[in-house]
Parts: sequence; C-alpha cells; structure tokens
Amino acid sequence: MNRIRATIVGGSGYTGGEVARLLLFHPEVELAQVVSSSRAGQYLHSAHPNLRGLSTLRFSHPDDLMPCDVLFLCLPHGATMGEIARYRQLAPRVIDLSADFRLRDPQLYQRWYGNAHQAPDLLREAVYGLPELHREELREATLVSGTGCMATTAILGLAPLYRAGLVDANVPLVLEAKVGSSAAGAKPGNSSHHPERSGAVRSFQPTGHRHSAELIQELGLLSGHGNTGLPQIVAFSATSIELVRGILVTAHVFTKERIDERQLWRVYREAYQREPFIRIVKERTGVYRYPEPKILAGSNYCDVGFELDVEQQRIVVMAALDNLMKGAAGNAVQALNCMFGWDEMLGLTFPGLHPV
Amino acid sequence: MNRIRATIVGGSGYTGGEVARLLLFHPEVELAQVVSSSRAGQYLHSAHPNLRGLSTLRFSHPDDLMPCDVLFLCLPHGATMGEIARYRQLAPRVIDLSADFRLRDPQLYQRWYGNAHQAPDLLREAVYGLPELHREELREATLVSGTGCMATTAILGLAPLYRAGLVDANVPLVLEAKVGSSAAGAKPGNSSHHPERSGAVRSFQPTGHRHSAELIQELGLLSGHGNTGLPQIVAFSATSIELVRGILVTAHVFTKERIDERQLWRVYREAYQREPFIRIVKERTGVYRYPEPKILAGSNYCDVGFELDVEQQRIVVMAALDNLMKGAAGNAVQALNCMFGWDEMLGLTFPGLHPV
Amino acid sequence: MNRIRATIVGGSGYTGGEVARLLLFHPEVELAQVVSSSRAGQYLHSAHPNLRGLSTLRFSHPDDLMPCDVLFLCLPHGATMGEIARYRQLAPRVIDLSADFRLRDPQLYQRWYGNAHQAPDLLREAVYGLPELHREELREATLVSGTGCMATTAILGLAPLYRAGLVDANVPLVLEAKVGSSAAGAKPGNSSHHPERSGAVRSFQPTGHRHSAELIQELGLLSGHGNTGLPQIVAFSATSIELVRGILVTAHVFTKERIDERQLWRVYREAYQREPFIRIVKERTGVYRYPEPKILAGSNYCDVGFELDVEQQRIVVMAALDNLMKGAAGNAVQALNCMFGWDEMLGLTFPGLHPV
Amino acid sequence: MNRIRATIVGGSGYTGGEVARLLLFHPEVELAQVVSSSRAGQYLHSAHPNLRGLSTLRFSHPDDLMPCDVLFLCLPHGATMGEIARYRQLAPRVIDLSADFRLRDPQLYQRWYGNAHQAPDLLREAVYGLPELHREELREATLVSGTGCMATTAILGLAPLYRAGLVDANVPLVLEAKVGSSAAGAKPGNSSHHPERSGAVRSFQPTGHRHSAELIQELGLLSGHGNTGLPQIVAFSATSIELVRGILVTAHVFTKERIDERQLWRVYREAYQREPFIRIVKERTGVYRYPEPKILAGSNYCDVGFELDVEQQRIVVMAALDNLMKGAAGNAVQALNCMFGWDEMLGLTFPGLHPV
Repeated sequence: MNRIRATIVGGSGYTGGEVARLLLFHPEVELAQVVSSSRAGQYLHSAHPNLRGLSTLRFSHPDDLMPCDVLFLCLPHGATMGEIARYRQLAPRVIDLSADFRLRDPQLYQRWYGNAHQAPDLLREAVYGLPELHREELREATLVSGTGCMATTAILGLAPLYRAGLVDANVPLVLEAKVGSSAAGAKPGNSSHHPERSGAVRSFQPTGHRHSAELIQELGLLSGHGNTGLPQIVAFSATSIELVRGILVTAHVFTKERIDERQLWRVYREAYQREPFIRIVKERTGVYRYPEPKILAGSNYCDVGFELDVEQQRIVVMAALDNLMKGAAGNAVQALNCMFGWDEMLGLTFPGLHPV
Repeated sequence: MNRIRATIVGGSGYTGGEVARLLLFHPEVELAQVVSSSRAGQYLHSAHPNLRGLSTLRFSHPDDLMPCDVLFLCLPHGATMGEIARYRQLAPRVIDLSADFRLRDPQLYQRWYGNAHQAPDLLREAVYGLPELHREELREATLVSGTGCMATTAILGLAPLYRAGLVDANVPLVLEAKVGSSAAGAKPGNSSHHPERSGAVRSFQPTGHRHSAELIQELGLLSGHGNTGLPQIVAFSATSIELVRGILVTAHVFTKERIDERQLWRVYREAYQREPFIRIVKERTGVYRYPEPKILAGSNYCDVGFELDVEQQRIVVMAALDNLMKGAAGNAVQALNCMFGWDEMLGLTFPGLHPV
Repeated sequence: MNRIRATIVGGSGYTGGEVARLLLFHPEVELAQVVSSSRAGQYLHSAHPNLRGLSTLRFSHPDDLMPCDVLFLCLPHGATMGEIARYRQLAPRVIDLSADFRLRDPQLYQRWYGNAHQAPDLLREAVYGLPELHREELREATLVSGTGCMATTAILGLAPLYRAGLVDANVPLVLEAKVGSSAAGAKPGNSSHHPERSGAVRSFQPTGHRHSAELIQELGLLSGHGNTGLPQIVAFSATSIELVRGILVTAHVFTKERIDERQLWRVYREAYQREPFIRIVKERTGVYRYPEPKILAGSNYCDVGFELDVEQQRIVVMAALDNLMKGAAGNAVQALNCMFGWDEMLGLTFPGLHPV
Repeated sequence: MNRIRATIVGGSGYTGGEVARLLLFHPEVELAQVVSSSRAGQYLHSAHPNLRGLSTLRFSHPDDLMPCDVLFLCLPHGATMGEIARYRQLAPRVIDLSADFRLRDPQLYQRWYGNAHQAPDLLREAVYGLPELHREELREATLVSGTGCMATTAILGLAPLYRAGLVDANVPLVLEAKVGSSAAGAKPGNSSHHPERSGAVRSFQPTGHRHSAELIQELGLLSGHGNTGLPQIVAFSATSIELVRGILVTAHVFTKERIDERQLWRVYREAYQREPFIRIVKERTGVYRYPEPKILAGSNYCDVGFELDVEQQRIVVMAALDNLMKGAAGNAVQALNCMFGWDEMLGLTFPGLHPV
C-alpha cells in the first residue's frame, strides 16, 4: 500500500523538528520534504541533531515546495494566514501549527493578537485540532489548526468539569501555567541565555496571555455557550521554570454545588476512559501522585489529576504534557491520524522515560 | 563592647546551618554553641561544607547545652513546644524557627497541625517574627517564632493590599507557590532522590497546606479582623520545581473597586519604601521584570512585584525570596537585630549573585 | 508466530524498569513476569510511572518465579553469582546485568571487587554482552553479562584505535567520565539528596574505579593480548555532574606514530560504518560538534567523536551514551536480539529527543 | 581616611558586574564610575539585577571616563592592548581582566591568540595577578593582568607539586576542566540558548585551549624553567556542563618517584596553610570529600584536593572555584588588596552557600 506524502514548512524550528521525527517513524507516511529558508541544502541533523543517521533528507528551499498529500505549517505566528491560499493549492489537507487559525471569531483574533486577520473567512472552516474535543470534525477537515500548548493543557484538564456543568461561573477561573524553555522557540535572545534562564522562576506573562482566548472559546463551546465564549473571568498566568520540555497547569475551579470525590472521579473517568492519550493520575502515595511533565517528555500523553477541597467547593485541577508533543507536534500527528481514519496512536507510542 | 552569646539547637539541618553561617559573620554576636544530637563532636563543616575553615567549633551534644543570651531553635515541627520551658530557662530570649509558635490560637493550631498544642498559654505571648509586620512587638519579645517560608512570601506580597483595604473578600484568594527542594529539609527520601526530584514540577500540596493558617492569621490582622482571621476563602497550592533555594508566590487578588496602576504603585511604595529588605520589582523591559528567586539566593531580600488587569479588577502579585534566608534563617537574624535594637541589616548585607 | 517469554528479576530498579519498558514494545517478546521482592503485588507503574496505562502486569514475588525463554537479572552486584545455577534452570538463556559475570579472570574479579567469585567456572563461559565486540559469541551464548555503563562508553570510543594498533602503550591512558545521577541507582541516600546532588560536579572515584577492570580486559583483547589484559597504565576517573541520564567519557590517547586526520577518520569509519547503534559525531560548526549525551536519552546510540592534536600525537576521544540504555538495558536488549538472530534494532528505534 | 576611587571599564558584562558588586561593599574603595558603551545612562541594576537598591550609580559613557586611583578593565580579549597607554594615563594602577597581558612572551601570545601583540614591551612589566604565586610583585605593580579562570584553577591545584619537583615531565600532563555557562560571557548565541545548553555535557575545546599557555608559563616558572615554559606535554580539554558558575579541574600527574600520602599531604599543607583563599579538601567520608564548585559560588575560595594511586605513581588533583570570583573578579580584588597592602580578605569574606 502506498504511504501518503507529507511535507513540513518551517522545518528548522523545534516544532518542525518534532513533526519530522514523528513522521520519519510513522508507518503510513513518507516524509517528502522539509522546507527551511535558512537551512536549505543542509541535512536535517544540522538543525535536529537527534535525527543524525536516520534520514538522508536535506532541507528544501521554499521555492522548491512541491505538491503533497498533507502539509504541516510550522511557521511563526502571523506568517501563515496571508499565504494560506497558496498552501492549500499544494495540498488537499493542511495542518497549521501557528496561532493563525485557532480562533473562530475574527474579532477575538484581533483583540488578542492586535491586528486584523488576513483570511477571516477561513476561521469558521478551520478545525481546532484537538481530537479529544473535535474528533468528528477532523475526519472531514481540510484545514486544521494546531493548538496552543498551554491552552491544550488547560482545556484537557478542565473539559470534563465544564462539559458536566459543574463550574460556578461567578467565581473567576484562575490558572497558573509552569512552562519549560522550549515553548519559547529555537531563537536565542537575552532571556533565553543560559546563565539568565537557568534556574529561573520567571513570571513572563502574569496577565493578558493570548492562550486565554483559546480557553474562552473552547470552554465556552463545552459549556454550551457556542461561539459567544465563556461567561466567566479567566485569570491566566504563565511562569517559566527550569525545564526544557513540559507544562504543568494548575487550575482553581469552584463548583456550583458541593461535590464529593466519588462524583468527581466519575466525571473524569467517563470523559477520558476511552481516550488513548489521556491518563488520570491521582494516587494517595508515592512520588508521582499527580501529573508530572518530566516523565512525559517525548510522549503524546496529557496526564490529568485533581484534588478536592470539599469545604471550599474548590477543585484544583492539574494537567501536564510535553509542549512539543501533545502541546504541538504530537497532537498534530494525532490529528493527522484522525483526518485519515487511522489508529490515533500510529507513530505516537513512545511512552516517555523514567528516571529522567 | 561585649558581643552577645548565641546558641543554635538543631544545628545540623539546613536552617541551623544558615543561622550558624550568618552568626559567624555577625559583628555583635559570638556563636557560642551549635547543638546536634546526631553530629555531636564533629566539626561544623561536616554538615555545612561551606563553613570549612571558618570556625573551629564542633557540634555539642544536647546534654551539654549551656546558658546563653539568645537561643535559636531549629528543630522539627512539634519538637519544641513540649520543651520550651526548659529552653527559656537557659536563655532570656528564644527564637523558635519551627511552626510550633506561629499561630496565636490553639484551636487554629489543632485544626491545621492535627494535635493539641502542648503550651497553649504561650501562643499569645510569642511574637510572629516578621519585622515588617511586628517590628514593635519584637523589641520587647522574649519568645519569637520564625515564620513559614511560603507564608512569609505570600504575606509580604499581599500585606499592602490588605492593609489598604483594597481586596474584595468575596472572591477567593488564589495563591500558587513554586518552591525549591531545600524547603523540604536535609533528610533524604524517595521524593528527594535526585533522579526523581530533578526537573520535577510536582504538586505536593494542592489543597490544605498548613501555611494557609499563617496567611489567614496575618492577613486577618492586617485587614482589621483581629484574631478571628481573614473572612475570605484562601486557596493555596504549592508546587515543587527544579530549584534548590527559592520561592515564588503568585497571588491573584480581585479588588473591590477599579484601581489604576498609579494608585497601586503608591500603595506598595508607601508600604515598603523604608523597609531595608523589600524591593519593588516591576520593569517594562529587560529579563528581570518581576521578582525572581534565583538572584536572591543567600540574600535576605523579599522582592515584590505586581501586574494589574484593569478590566478584570485583578491584581497578580508576585513575591520571591530565599526560603532559607528571608524565609527562615535570615529573617530570624533580622528579628534578632530588632530584639536587640541593632541596625536590622547587621550581618545580612550579602546582596545575592548574578548570574547564578 | 509465537513470541518468546521474557522475565525480569529485580524489576523495581532503574535498569529493570528500562528493560520492562523496552520489552513491552518489543515485537518478538512477551513480558511474562517482572519480579520484585519489595513491590510484589503492586502494578508496574508504582515503580515506573512512565508505564502507567501500558500494562496490567503486577510485580511478582521471587517465590513465584516461573520458567521462561530468557531471564534478565537486574539485581545488585554480588547478588547473582551465588544463585546463578538456579536461574539457569529456569531459563535456557540468562542475561545478567550486574557486574558478576563481566570479567573472565576470577583473580581479576577478586582484585577489583574485593572478594572471591562464587561461580568462577562460569566466568569463561559467560559472554561480555557488547555486540560490537562479541557479536558472534552472542549467537550461541546461554549466559550473557551486561556491561558497565562507563566501561561501555570508553571501550566503544577507543576500540577502533586499539584494534588498529595505533596506541602508544608506554603513555598512560587517561579517561575522565562525566556521569548522571541515575547511574547510582534508585536507592536514596545523603549524596543523592536533591539539594546536595543538584548542580554537583563531584569526583566520586578519582582512582581505582571498578570499571577499569573491564577496560583492561576488553582493550587487552582488542589489542591482541588475550586474557592477560592491557599492558598500559589505565588512569580512569569519574565525576558526577548535573544530569540524570547520560555519560560522556573523554579519553586521552597518544599514538605510536604521527597520524593525520584522514587516517583517523578511516579507522573510525571502517570500524563503525555497519554498526546500527554507533554514530561518528565530528562537525566543524554548529552546537553539536561532538557526542552529547543529552540528546541520547532513551536511545540506544553510542555517539563517538575525536579530535587530533597532530603535534602532540594526541587523540582526544569523546564517547557518549545513555547509561540506562546503551549502557545497560538497551544494550542488553540488543544482545538479546543477537542471541535470537533478530534484527539488532528491534525494539530499539527511538532516536532520542531534541531539544531536551 | 579617604577611600580610593576605582573605576570599571566594560562594566555591563559578568566580570564587570562582579567587580562592581565587590567594590560596592569594599571598605577601602569607592566605586567612582562604571563604564559601558551599550548601557550608558542606565542604572547598574539594568544589567546586574542583584544590585537593585544598592547603588544610585548609572553606567557612564566611555567618553566620560575620568581619572581615578585604580582602573579595572573588563573588556573582551584583544580590546585592551591597543588602548592600554591611554588607560594608564588615567590611573596609576590598572588591572586588566582580559587575556591581553597574561603571557610574558609576545611569541607565545602570537602562537595561542593568532595575532601579534600590540604592546609587546609591556608584557614583561605586567604582573600575572595570582597572589598565591606573585604576591611580592603585586605590591609594586602598576599593570596587573587578571588570570584565566580555568588556568587559575589548574595552576592552584598543581603548583605545590611542581614547586616541590615531584612531577615526571616525561609523562604528559592531562587536565580536564568542567565549566559552567557563565564562563562564556553575557552575550547570547546558539550554543548558549537554554534548550540547547541546558543539561549539556559539551566538549567545547578538546585540544588547543588558550589557557594552556598560562599553564605552560606559570608551571614552567614554578618548576624552575624561567620563561622558557614547561618542558612537558600539556593535554588540556574543556567540557561545558550544566552549571552557571563554577569550574572543576581534574588533573592527572605522574610522579618521578613513589610517594606516599603523608608526604603528599605535607607538600600541600606547606604550600597552602597560610593562604587565606585556598582550602585543602580531602575527606574519607561524607558527601563533600573533594572540591566541589557549587558551594563556592560567590566565594573567593579555591578548594584543592587530591587522591593518590600509589601503585601507578599517579596523583589525581582536583581543584574548584567560582570562575567569576577566584577565577576573575574576586581574584582581581584580592590582587587589588595586595597592591595597596591591605588585608587580602577585605571585601571577600562571603563563604558560599549550602545547600545551593
């Protein structure tokens, strides 16, 4: 049987490198081209040293981009939307990992990203590529958006509570994301210089983080508010910590009514028992009682846990994932598997390491 | 002029080691004895390798404890309260760095620590040893309690807002603490084993952390509720991260009324402009725009910053310190300086390193 | 076709956990039992949190050990040799990952390990399980020894030079190993306590490290000295650094005659061009010019590089691997593949991550 | 009594920042100016966040440089030698922390740095600013050179052996330096980007490192070869590891004759018992048995240890320091103290932290 041909545009960055690694081992996919303007002509391992010896591919120049079956766009935010028509002519299916097609509402886009969207008509057509929420739409999709890494973590942690209608929307939803350095990309700068970044606990966006927009959209959909968004204050803060890969989101939710732990377990189990990449982590003893991002590096899992303060009617939700995998490249490959009707785990079975 | 004689009990742990280091360089203090049951007879540097060559002192056995001018108790929680009478006979001033005398209300103690207090009458007499809040009481105090490292960070970050009456108590106060490994003490265990602890982002206490009790007490006092405590839900979570020394607390506060940034600056400046160990850190540019614990290692500073979401009436407060310094030993020495009427900065001038 | 049944004894440690992870994904193997005295009855993921959701196996008690096709022994050094007869009755093929069967000469064993070997007759029979050196013997072997992680790194780095007869044995061979914390095992202690071990650069064995014995044996064999060992001073030092997984060995070799870089390239290329798990890493530019252990975490590669000081007739050899993979479990699975005549890469294709 | 006025040129880098921090607390010095072309007009803490609140100084523009009593030059290698005459007109004493005046022999300079020296006549006049070796010359010096951080570590570790004539010069001297990221300076680049540099064990200079030249010069002087240099092969390799501050050098020395441990202790004790900043670290038990750079961060100590392989006549010497302190700024301040006849410990008493 023929394998489909996949091409990566923006292949020298971290997300592009991960998509390349995954596709090189994917049984149904042939990695046709990896495009990079800055590295055209060089071997893949010049940018991705872990791929040394695994492929004889060299980066292609953007001018040499050829038609293919699926196109992964791993370009910076804002670079895709103006060129999307051209890309869609090259491939019947496009997965854009930038933020350009995550929001359905052009006004929401403008509010959070500061300028007008260049292809507003496509926003409704694009599918927010989170299989756990939009699996059915992905089967028919021709334009799929990748998802924000912190937004994905938060949404997967909270979705069962919002879908079940448990949350008291009168109390603000407070979320704290702890994030590794790879989430800021491959480009060096003052704040990523090792002597400065090492050991940091750095509040890089205490208010106004753009991933809030995805949360408002998706949690709004889940709680039945359609495209009008979540009618609740979302207080999202992000802190960079000493870590390369990984995100832990801690979310504080207050419930409308008293709930006990058994009910809460049921809500999460029903939501996630059939999901191949979501595990509920909640133990009474041991070192790994709650989700822990470090053991997820390289895996496509999102681990979700929770703790209940019965008296306060507060649920603390913890969700963890690898920002380059379930938070970007791995999730995009899972979406690809959905789009082609394959087993969602194809090419995504690496479970993560311990110790690490 | 004669220097006062100070003794440390429980001197082989991390807090005891820091008190020893500080007192060895304190111009008004002679370090008389450092007591440790497990290391009696050994040199100080057997437990505290940074003190090699600085002192010929050896650890004393508890049985050899002698009278002195001030006694620092650096024992585990629960070990002090039953013996406090004996310690007070040995020294006219006692500074207890455990949690035993932090709470004024014996019932609050029982609720959070799970058993009855053994010296309930002393709880009212003991002074919560945070100079920024209890400077006057410290001048006359004979029994001073050390303060919880995370509680100290949170209280110092939030005190100006509560004192100014700005906070809307109808919305829960959500606090997230990010903490280094030294806060868990010097005793090895499964969760502190390096291959497990390294790179961790570990929710060790999502709900019910004991430091909440100190917050409720001290923020209650500041907001005029006396000893009845803060009439607001306090949702405090703590996460261990890859770091040895340091705490960053991120707190989410909602205000009763709209406030602008200028007003907020004024509240913090008025509160802290004369404090020797509190700096307001809030920059528009640069890498270190907000409080960052790593550059505070070894210093006695608590850095405090904030960001305002005007629309949401939300203030994100960030506060950072070195848990063994301003969060324990350094703060205790500052309290000592208050007790003796000395310049509060004596022995505490090390500013921290950069890069680090 | 039937898969073979494999059992792991000593399955709760780090090496046992890695063997379990690899076998769970190995297409020719069924993981029959994982034995642990301390965790009998618990799920695998109680010790190996990365295996959560991947297996319903529970640890078996040693008394319940059943016959199987191949037995992996992951016990502490010294625990295997006294019981080896019993284990061999249970399985026709045994792979012992401890140090008990690494040395062929009982006297060499006694010298380096301090006590008499309990099964000296088997030392000749056991095969040193490094496929790159003993591939042919592995095909017939029934008792295979795992290899020391640092010894493996050094031997693979140096083998081409010794086999080619280039090394001046009159000059001592100086080797420095930089090692991560997982090499010391899963048991907590003072030196592995995170606040002590974090950021360490700790000379844990400047002289007399036992892995020297393997070096002397294997480099002696390669250079034609049979079992009499290498007639050269071996100066091996090991330093623990901040890292969980990974080893970098830097070796300083002086050559009998002047050699140029082209010749040196040829020696290494000829030695390793057909090896599936050895890559020569030597670039003129870029960040990853030489072997770097961090991008090998989870992979079975040993990366080898070199630099030549023509004037000094000195070659600096650098070799890197993941101590739990090519330095232990991965190498053992590669040996298994040899023993059964399978493709050596079966179950070992994960290439490592970047960034990480 | 008046304090001397000191100025720093090149004050926005890491070394300049450390000199500034030390001088701000030095009892005999007033920090007159800190010059930076890139940051002129900004506060010191814009580059050195640990100095926030400690000084109202702003960086001066190079054009505004004024006469002073001592000038610290913290410029990149090669930037000083062409301008040295101008600097010496501004201050009667100049301490240059670049590599420009470390070598006495212009030809040695040319060989290792690749171009002709621009002020060759001054090379003889400049004093290599290591107090332990050149204390007497420092008292009269008007031009003092800072010392290479790795060279300093190695020289201080080996000096006693070379001075005592114990070393067999027929065997190459092999040295391995393990180095933190701050040694590469404050300028960001691909190799210092956190996701790449974090967890690295990176052979950045396996052969031909320039610090070899200082070793050859200083060990040559110590072993009585005057300025002709050390007649021994020096094989120096450097590896970057996960660490911000700190260096550990491991050196392998072979002795002319058999030596026992008692003799070796005597050699080191006699060499260093009166040195305020050198400690011999060699313990039989405990975690910190040998020199460990992490507990030296911020201190001016160089810790030296050794281990003897009697049979091999090999001594493994380990030496550790903080590259920005005893390896640069701290050592320069110690040299300043020598130049002015002050207590060498003035301004340098911070002992380092534990845990850290």
